[in-house]
Order: sequence, then C-alpha cells, then structure tokens
Amino acid sequence: MLLPLIVAAIYGEISGVYFLITLAAAGLIGFVLTRRKPAKRTMYAREGFVLTALAWILISLIGAAPFTLSGQIPSYLDAVFEMVSGFTTTGASILTEVEALDQCMLFWRSFSHWLGGMGILVFMLALVNFSGGQANHLLRAESPGPSVSKMVPNMRKSAAILYGIYMAMTAVEIVLLIAGGMPVFDSLCTAFGTAGTGGFGVKSASIGYYDSYYLQGVISVFMILFGVNFNVYFLLLMRKFSASVRNTEVRTYFAIIAASTLIITLNIVELFANAFDAFHHALFSVASIITTTGFSTVDFNQWPELSRMILVLLMIVGACAGSTGGGVKVSRLVILVKALTSEVRKLLHPRSVKVLTIDGKQVSQEVVQGVQNYMILYAIVTVVSMLLVSLDNLDLVTTVTSVMATLNNIGPGLGLVGPAGSYAMFSPLAKIVLTLDMLFGRLELFPMLILLMPSTWRKH
Amino acid sequence: MLLPLIVAAIYGEISGVYFLITLAAAGLIGFVLTRRKPAKRTMYAREGFVLTALAWILISLIGAAPFTLSGQIPSYLDAVFEMVSGFTTTGASILTEVEALDQCMLFWRSFSHWLGGMGILVFMLALVNFSGGQANHLLRAESPGPSVSKMVPNMRKSAAILYGIYMAMTAVEIVLLIAGGMPVFDSLCTAFGTAGTGGFGVKSASIGYYDSYYLQGVISVFMILFGVNFNVYFLLLMRKFSASVRNTEVRTYFAIIAASTLIITLNIVELFANAFDAFHHALFSVASIITTTGFSTVDFNQWPELSRMILVLLMIVGACAGSTGGGVKVSRLVILVKALTSEVRKLLHPRSVKVLTIDGKQVSQEVVQGVQNYMILYAIVTVVSMLLVSLDNLDLVTTVTSVMATLNNIGPGLGLVGPAGSYAMFSPLAKIVLTLDMLFGRLELFPMLILLMPSTWRKH
Repeated sequence: MLLPLIVAAIYGEISGVYFLITLAAAGLIGFVLTRRKPAKRTMYAREGFVLTALAWILISLIGAAPFTLSGQIPSYLDAVFEMVSGFTTTGASILTEVEALDQCMLFWRSFSHWLGGMGILVFMLALVNFSGGQANHLLRAESPGPSVSKMVPNMRKSAAILYGIYMAMTAVEIVLLIAGGMPVFDSLCTAFGTAGTGGFGVKSASIGYYDSYYLQGVISVFMILFGVNFNVYFLLLMRKFSASVRNTEVRTYFAIIAASTLIITLNIVELFANAFDAFHHALFSVASIITTTGFSTVDFNQWPELSRMILVLLMIVGACAGSTGGGVKVSRLVILVKALTSEVRKLLHPRSVKVLTIDGKQVSQEVVQGVQNYMILYAIVTVVSMLLVSLDNLDLVTTVTSVMATLNNIGPGLGLVGPAGSYAMFSPLAKIVLTLDMLFGRLELFPMLILLMPSTWRKH
Repeated sequence: MLLPLIVAAIYGEISGVYFLITLAAAGLIGFVLTRRKPAKRTMYAREGFVLTALAWILISLIGAAPFTLSGQIPSYLDAVFEMVSGFTTTGASILTEVEALDQCMLFWRSFSHWLGGMGILVFMLALVNFSGGQANHLLRAESPGPSVSKMVPNMRKSAAILYGIYMAMTAVEIVLLIAGGMPVFDSLCTAFGTAGTGGFGVKSASIGYYDSYYLQGVISVFMILFGVNFNVYFLLLMRKFSASVRNTEVRTYFAIIAASTLIITLNIVELFANAFDAFHHALFSVASIITTTGFSTVDFNQWPELSRMILVLLMIVGACAGSTGGGVKVSRLVILVKALTSEVRKLLHPRSVKVLTIDGKQVSQEVVQGVQNYMILYAIVTVVSMLLVSLDNLDLVTTVTSVMATLNNIGPGLGLVGPAGSYAMFSPLAKIVLTLDMLFGRLELFPMLILLMPSTWRKH
C-alpha cells in the first residue's frame, strides 16, 4: 500500500491518507497476531488449504478498506467485490464510471492484479523462509494448474526466478506502452492488468480508449505471453529451446488462439471497415478472453452469435497452467481429451494397454482422475452459483456468463455484464456468490471447498 | 407400419397408402439385403457400434418416407428430423401446427416414440435369435446407462420381461386416460409418448389442451414412472421389495424431483390462481423435463429465471439408467459425485484407501473412468454442436437449449424452441446437426462417434 500512497502524494490526493490508516491498522493486527505462538506448529493438508483460502479473503478485506473509508466505493460489500476481483485477477467491476475514482485508488486496483497475478503466496514464498513441508501444502493449494513441474528443487529459488521473469516482462510492456505515447500512469496500470491477466482499466472504455493499433497490438501480444506456461520461459532461460517448443500445452494454446481468431475474423468482417480491422479486434478479444484478462477494445457483446459462442467457450478453456491466467487451463483439457481417446481405443481394442503420455512423459492415472474430479467440482460450483444468481431474475445469458466470467477470473461476460456493462446491478446475495466464485476459480476450487465444508470446522 | 395403416383405414384417410408403399419398398430392400451372405460372420466391437448407429439412421430414413410422399411434411430433411426425433424419443418437432397432419401420420409419429422407447434393437432382441457374443456388443452400444445389471442371464428372456413390463404399464396408462374422458386416439398417442418419454403430442398446445387436473396428473405420474430404472420393476416382480427401495439411483431421482418441484412451486406461485395450481404445473414440468419427455401444460419459457435455470439443469440430469429416458442419467451423476467425494477425502487424508460403493456393491475404477470419459465426450459433442448451430445467428438461449434439448432427447428447450415454439426456423445445417445430436444422445454417444470417425471407414 506504499505505492498507492506515493501515487496519492504525486497527484496531491487527500484520499491517500486512507491507505496510511489501513496500512497502520493492518500492521497492528499483524503484529498482535504474530505475538501469539500456536502450540502445534505442524501443518496438515487441511490447514494448508484453509490457510490459503483465508489469506486471500483476509487480504481482500483489508485491501478494500481504503475504497470505503474514502467514500469512493460507499458500500463495503462492493469494495470487497472489487478487491477480490483485483487480487484474483478477474477484473469484474461494480463501477459504472471508472474515471470517478482518484488516481491512487485506480492505481491500487490495478496493482492488486499485479500482486495477485503470480499468487500473493508464491510472491511471499520468495521473501519469507518457510520450512519445506509446510510450503509444499501451500503451493499445492495455489499452483495454477495440474502439472507445474518443479523447475528447481528449492522452492524459494524457483519462486524468485518466476518472479524475476514476471517483473522483467512487465517492465518491457511498460516501456513499449510509454514508447507508443500512452501516459506513464496509464501504462503502469495497463501493464499491471495485463501481467496479472486481470483486466481492470483506468478508463470506462477499457483499452478502446487508446485508439491506436500499436498500443492495442502490444497489449494483445503481452496478454498472450502472460497466458503461456512460465515453465517455457524458464526453459528458454536455460537455453533448452527444443524442449520449450515441444510443449504440448503451449502448442495447443497457440493453435486455439489462431483458430478462434481466424473464425471470428471471418464472422465479423462485415462489421468493420476492412479485414485488418476485423482481425485486429478479433485477436485482441480472443487474447483477452482465453488469457482471462478481460480488457476490451470493442463491445463484443454486439457480435454475431458464432463469435459470442466461441468467446464463451474460450472463457472455460482459459490460459496455460503455470501462467497468471485462470479458467480450466489448456493442460487439463489436453489430459481430458487424451483420456477420452484412450477410452475409445479401449472400446475398440479391449486388450490394448492404456498409457497416457504428454510431452513424452507418462501421465499417471492419479493425475487423470484428479483432473476429472476437478471438472466435476467445477461443474457443481457453476451449477450452484447459477441457481443462486438466477434468484436476481435477470436474463439467462447474464446469469450464466456472470458466473463463468467470475469463476474463470475473466471479468466481462455477455448480456448485462458485457464489456459495456458492469456488476453494479446485482443483489448483495449475487455479489457474495460471484465474489466466492472468483476465489474458487483463482484457488483452483479445492481450498475454497474445504474452507466451506462444515467438517473442516468440527473438532477433530 | 401396419398400425398406422389400420388407423388410416378407420379414419378413411387416403394418405395411408404411403405407409403401404413404404412397407413394400422396405420389405423388398430387406429381402434383397438378407440374400447377400457376408463371408466373415464374426462381429467385433467396432461392427457392433456401427451397426447399431446405422440401424437407427436407416429406420428413421425409411420411417420418414410416408410424411414426404404424402406431402404432409414436404421437405424430406424435415421428415427425417421428425422421425429421428420420434425414434430417439426426443419429441422435438419442425411442425408449427400439429393438427394439420392426418390421424395416421400423427399415430405413426407417436408410435415411433413407443418403438424407440425400449430401443428398437432390444425390442428386436426379444424376437430374433442372436448368438450370445454378437448380441452382447449390440446391447453394450444400446443399453441406456452405465450400470444396467444383467437381470437374468438369458438375453432374450430379459428383453421379453422388460418388454412385458413396458407393455403393461402403457396399457394401464391408456385405460386411465380413457377413463378420464380423453378420446381413445389421443389416449393411445399420449401413452405412447409417455412410455417412450418422447413428447410428441397430437395437439399444438401439447397436454395443455386437456384442461383436466386428473388427465395431466395421470400423465405426470406415468412420466415419472417411465423414468425409473426398470430393474426396480423387475425386483418388484421378483418380490424383492427391500432391494428395490434401497436403490440409490431411484432414491436420488425422486429426491431431485421433489426438491425441484418444491423450489419451482415457490418461485412461480404468484403466476397462478392458487398454490395447488402452481404445484400441479411445477410437478408436470419437472417430470416432463427430468424424464426427457417434453410434454407441456403451460409455457415454462415465461417462468422466472430460477425456474428456467432449474429446468435447464434437469435437462442435463435426465432420468434413471435402464429407463426409457435420456440425458446424462442420475446414476452417472451419483458416480461422479461419489468420485469427487473420495478425491476430497484423499486430499485431506493422503493415506486413506479409495473405495467407491453404490448400493453396497463396489464400483470399479474402470466404471468411474468410463463415466468420466462419457462426460468429456458429452461436453465435446455439446460444444461442437453449439458452434455449428450458432451459425444460424439466433440468440444464445435458443442455440444452447436447442442442442441440450436434442442431445438429451427432451424436445422443447427455451427461447425460440420453447414449448410454444418449434424447430422449423433452423437452417438445413442446424437441422442436420440437431438430428445427429438426437442420435448421439439416444445411443449414449459412442456408437455415433465411432460411426463418424474416419478411421472406422479405412481398410483394416
């Protein structure tokens, strides 16, 4: 919170004082809590999951305070929604006019994306010395995707490397945006939103405000880059070029982007002045949705049905595992399709042996089952959320896509929550459900499930 | 086709002659085909799947002939859509005014539901003597659901028993409907539509035409009964009462019906004159959708969002395995939820042993995987179909629910394909896709997948 404080100082905004107050209060609470040493210090899986979920919730509750204290987002529930949306890198907003906020508030909103992007706890892992076993449970609860191969044995070191790549890429984007004529403040906030695949903008028109092929193009490319499995960048750093190119997940990810962009371009070409324009906005929208960023240059809610349908499906696909993106993740889908293929082979040739490999490595039956169970839980969370949100009695498209856009950490959906809309009109119940969905999605479902299970809170 | 011929004779309809022509032509083709004896008579899994899929398609192509020959459904594509909808017990119709058809045509439409209901091939199994191994592959392709325990070792005998139960229940429904004052012709057709969980009506207003609590109530009850796993009726026949009551799938099925009806009643109570009226129509609609019948008494497309959402979800749930209903089937969902529960237990207690039991019997890992792979294929078919149908550029709700209503063999969806609408406005491509979806759903996906796989048609 020191950074928004500095921003407030630069712009001479009085509302900056509320960051100072929150900072002091949070520091005090933290100090008191660390005084209390628990008798039992061993941490089991359950504690790891619950701690992760609670940490994200607590950080959002604290982070939301300046918005409400300053009166810029009067309802604390709305402020928490906005903050969870920030930290989970969702980008769904209850604001109808973004420009009404002070610069320091806008900065904090966007910066929360950047913090959330790599996972606040992975970030903290690089700073705080956890003992091996405990950190493992935390990482298990937090690692974005099923198959993040341990890159280097030492966890602190691996976190530091990831963090370094992340910072360097963000810095390059900031430079490129400033070079294209975007104001420095906007460049910082936009790069934070891109890096975290978040999607909060500092303008109501989102990236549509910057009417420049270059700026929008840079953002398109960086959204796609931040959706790539960071293992690949690590391999590139290690000069293992062939291994990085062979990665099935990343190849599939680029293939999906290419195919979707092509089909949407053909589908919307009549709406634009020329084919390049159509391609430009198709690529931007595809990149924004598949990486679960949620920036927009145009209102894709107005596009023909096929394009809308493709975007809805990309919401579920999501980015690569081991990236800052959300959604189901490409690697999970690859595993599911491979499992199905092997089932069909088994049906036709009952005596064949089922072996499932990805990138030359065998995928164990345990991993496949884990992914399949993930999908079941994903479906259950979706269904329950949709039922609760439908109590608001809005149209089906709004209800369905609002759940999908929050659970997959995207931001905008279709209908009333399309790029031109906001989440302002939802009832408090629906806002709570959608807030929980953002946390469910960001924490890969299980930590939130275990947090909400009554058995977790019974004496063991 | 002898039966519609008799109906035509009774009503003095000239169009009956087209059944005679089709009958003769089909008989001739069949005679010629049976002359040709194949050199290789052994049947492998692949042949079983392909044969099943082709048989359903061929029967629909033949069954559609009288509609087009008589000019009552001028487009042959439309007639095939209607006939596939009949045999797959879907009930989706391209007709905007049902009453325009001759009685013999209406009878044939409804009778196709009844034939399709138990599976034409299971029906044929009771009549034709297959050698054990070959029939097994056919039954595997056709058995409605994952866990139809073999009831009696002899396949012919078990088919005969199922068929007997089916006939008896249909007869009881016919008698009850006639007793309630429904015309004999309507009673026959309605009972055929209920037994097959099909949903073709002989009136455009569907069951709403019969403004009687008694008649609509009888149909509600029989829809629910035909959605029950027929194993239960067999157990009742064998006087194994406790085993039949313990059945997890059937208990879950009734629990879902009760909960859905209760919630919808509360949600729609203001739209009706009194609470009983709301309950009556809620129960009818829930029964109609979960059993995938598709009859309607009111236009539930006009209901509030929560009710519509519940109905959409029930479309996916479907009836019990081993019934005439479609959808994913309750038993599959039970298995999926149990698998998830055991995954969570494993996460929290890594050393626990995963054992999954239903009704006291252990469910093998193979079965669980089969169900999970089924769901993946289900999702893939849904996604591909939605993309193709969205080329028609209708609204999202119509696109999505038309695919769900055909793939799950229900009939009416929401939006333009709601109870008050029809499938007439779709393009030929969309009609073909939805026709294939009905077959995919009815044949439990895999036979159609294998039929459409290029490798099936390569020389082996």
